[in-house]
Amino acid sequence: MRISINRHADTPVYLQIKNQVRDMIFSDVLPEGMLLPPERSLAKDLEVNRSTVIRAYQELKADGLVGSQVGKGTVVLHQTVKKSSLAEGYINPLPWYQLFAETVTSSNDNIIGDIMAITGSDNVISFAGGIPAPSLYPIEIMREIQSELFETANRELFLHSPVEGHYPLRESISYLLRQRQIVAAPKDTVILSGSQQGLDFMARVFIRPGDTVIVEEPTFFGAIQIFRSAGARVIGAPIDKEGLRTDVLEALLVRHKPKFIYTLPTFQNPSGVTMSLERRYQLLNLAYQYQLPILEDDPYGELYYESTPIPPLKALDRHGYVIYLSTFSKSLFLGLRVGWVTAAPQVLAKFAQLKQMTDLHVNTPAQLLLDAFIRKGCYERHVAVLRQEYAARRDKMLRALEKYKVPGISWDKPEGGYYIWCKLPDNILRHKLVANASKRGVVFLPGEAFYPDGTQGDTHVRLNYTFASPEQIETGIKYLLQAVRETTITAGNHENERNLKPLV
Amino acid sequence: MRISINRHADTPVYLQIKNQVRDMIFSDVLPEGMLLPPERSLAKDLEVNRSTVIRAYQELKADGLVGSQVGKGTVVLHQTVKKSSLAEGYINPLPWYQLFAETVTSSNDNIIGDIMAITGSDNVISFAGGIPAPSLYPIEIMREIQSELFETANRELFLHSPVEGHYPLRESISYLLRQRQIVAAPKDTVILSGSQQGLDFMARVFIRPGDTVIVEEPTFFGAIQIFRSAGARVIGAPIDKEGLRTDVLEALLVRHKPKFIYTLPTFQNPSGVTMSLERRYQLLNLAYQYQLPILEDDPYGELYYESTPIPPLKALDRHGYVIYLSTFSKSLFLGLRVGWVTAAPQVLAKFAQLKQMTDLHVNTPAQLLLDAFIRKGCYERHVAVLRQEYAARRDKMLRALEKYKVPGISWDKPEGGYYIWCKLPDNILRHKLVANASKRGVVFLPGEAFYPDGTQGDTHVRLNYTFASPEQIETGIKYLLQAVRETTITAGNHENERNLKPLV
Repeated sequence: MRISINRHADTPVYLQIKNQVRDMIFSDVLPEGMLLPPERSLAKDLEVNRSTVIRAYQELKADGLVGSQVGKGTVVLHQTVKKSSLAEGYINPLPWYQLFAETVTSSNDNIIGDIMAITGSDNVISFAGGIPAPSLYPIEIMREIQSELFETANRELFLHSPVEGHYPLRESISYLLRQRQIVAAPKDTVILSGSQQGLDFMARVFIRPGDTVIVEEPTFFGAIQIFRSAGARVIGAPIDKEGLRTDVLEALLVRHKPKFIYTLPTFQNPSGVTMSLERRYQLLNLAYQYQLPILEDDPYGELYYESTPIPPLKALDRHGYVIYLSTFSKSLFLGLRVGWVTAAPQVLAKFAQLKQMTDLHVNTPAQLLLDAFIRKGCYERHVAVLRQEYAARRDKMLRALEKYKVPGISWDKPEGGYYIWCKLPDNILRHKLVANASKRGVVFLPGEAFYPDGTQGDTHVRLNYTFASPEQIETGIKYLLQAVRETTITAGNHENERNLKPLV
Repeated sequence: MRISINRHADTPVYLQIKNQVRDMIFSDVLPEGMLLPPERSLAKDLEVNRSTVIRAYQELKADGLVGSQVGKGTVVLHQTVKKSSLAEGYINPLPWYQLFAETVTSSNDNIIGDIMAITGSDNVISFAGGIPAPSLYPIEIMREIQSELFETANRELFLHSPVEGHYPLRESISYLLRQRQIVAAPKDTVILSGSQQGLDFMARVFIRPGDTVIVEEPTFFGAIQIFRSAGARVIGAPIDKEGLRTDVLEALLVRHKPKFIYTLPTFQNPSGVTMSLERRYQLLNLAYQYQLPILEDDPYGELYYESTPIPPLKALDRHGYVIYLSTFSKSLFLGLRVGWVTAAPQVLAKFAQLKQMTDLHVNTPAQLLLDAFIRKGCYERHVAVLRQEYAARRDKMLRALEKYKVPGISWDKPEGGYYIWCKLPDNILRHKLVANASKRGVVFLPGEAFYPDGTQGDTHVRLNYTFASPEQIETGIKYLLQAVRETTITAGNHENERNLKPLV
């Protein structure tokens, strides 16, 4: 019996022995009834400990490959299936791409994954993500709360939670909602793995392939992606400085009969625009008239840097038409993956059913941690700190834009949220801008990602001001605008004109 | 201006003032140009602090409802949209059920949710769930690791993770997989929110409405539910004491051309059966021959109470046909919601795409906690403790079944895992058994939940022995078998014969 041992392999020695004997049995090198060498002598041959061989033989017995016969030793048993029958001939690799259902889009533009990968790397100034400033994380308070929870909650900290979420956290969310002028009982909320999961559940609950969904144009690209992968036609409705153009919307409702409208009314992503109160009432009126649910996504509403913002649509809607999503990802940490939906009971029942089927419930420790953080009043204090700090970063970015300004760029001052939506010169070579800027260590999101048809918005960029430090903001904007200047075609910019030729 | 204040309401007083003024403006009680009372005098009238009225007026200004006029005071501004236009006429409630897509089943049997709700309540002995024993949770070690992580990982603890999972945890999982004889690099694994999410992603990646999926009969009800809600026909293949009947399976493959096969080969849920090595090779051969992916669900494999178990299908498969799911929910805590998939790169790419779209990534603190727990060798020690303790609980339940046995019941001894699958007398009134047992404070899962057609299995119950304490196991089995005796029709059991009549 020839067995070779590799002492540097990851596989333990006893397993190497066992697997080789198994293979010899299946390939009939060791036929039925054959005696295996005694453990002691095999151990000597292989220069291993006797217990190693004993363990290998025990495992072979457990697998029904060998048996002990009194007075004889260890004997190979009858095997119906031989290794040879498994290995015989050429086995085709699986044609995976023929097996996949088409409903999952195979789009290559994994923007979110790319941003997350870039954002982690050093030596890069990132205006690309939508991530809160790590330096402001309330780590010390979290450490204290976590250690209290080990005392008070103990095992409950790791037990399963109800599908709809940890009840005390749902109570705490009711409290937060009241500050946003939304009156909702704990039972009106279901906890989700981020508001991203709310978008996915909306798609699964409402969209049949071929249905239409209306979104703002521009809008959050993750929403476009998820609605489309559920088989929806995603139609954009324009926005202006007062938000969604309700006059255009009405024409779209008549023409497309959408399943629902998706809107980010407050400090919109990417434009930073806030829908006016007048437009909010007009939108609600249209929803009532056309019997249309509104999906209101409100991740940024509490991060206002001027006066308190206009109430959410959910606060103005008295008829349960608004499905309201929000999250702790923008005010605390992205890494906890906790958000929620507040909606009519019929919708919540569907969401809870999906939650149970798809992942049972949200991570319990995260729910307990957030609940304690809110109950102690830490959440409000933390958000107040963020408002100050992010307002300062926004102003820093606005000043830097002004300072390093190049002809043809423009922007509006957002009154809250995470982003400045910056218009570039019309004559920019946009395909080159991303490469030119990242050569200088600056990343951002090009505007076309935010349009359903991917062709508009090509002269805008979205600049996030919460993640980079104030020093990085100054430097990053300087380099970015240098890159803009260099990739803009002007009478005097000959090098770029030459570079343009192959593109034409 | 009549304003009424409710000092016991949840809504802060300044908001009560603001909302009532807003409503009066919208309903033209306060027309354009109307002067609001000075802050001081309104405060006096309402017996509130002056700063409360100031805040209310400030918010009305922020909303564009009123303005300050020098020398006059606070004045109502022109409003295009009036409350009256919003509230005019009767607004129909949304016909939600007409709007929902049909792909989400509206099945009422929310078994998992029900189990989770029951399991939390006191005074109940639960054999129903699949939950690890809370008394064995390694809380102290977790507390230490958590507090180390606050030092070492600090902010990273709450940052976003890569879509595919925290890389060190993927390394640790490679290490755990080697102990299960599976050779897989970290890149071969994607971290999921429990293996439940793996079932959901399988359905989304592979199933088009009308496709067929083959499952073992009986099998995990959550899998039946999720495959069906994706539009699949779920066909059962029988099992016996050696696991999946591969002879019957081949006939089913020819007839139904399924998209994939779902199997729990080791310590199966609910039957406790382990597929023999011979059957494993036969199943792989069939998969190769019919070009069929195998979804192997292995939540229980490391919880063996006799010899080390037969290798997973994934360890025997050299051609990438097996998609392998596993989880920390059965060995540690359900509440963390962390599991994983190990599979061919094409499949992992699809899973990662879905992960990014549906919930971005798994909770970061849970991933760091688990990784540290494994690296310190705590995981292996903990699983060794579980093996001892669960073996003792299993034996306790087996002894209690023997002790309180009633005619017609039978069971097999499972060699690992969580469950005893117990056959009841044929002449039992099964509809009454659940009620009779829960009257005595004992809950369990009736067998029919585990069959795709819901009608078979009606003389089995699944009994979990990991969650109840050893004392509860003895008492619970005693009461359960009393209930069985009372709900079985025998010549001498007249009361039940009378009760039977209305059912016939």
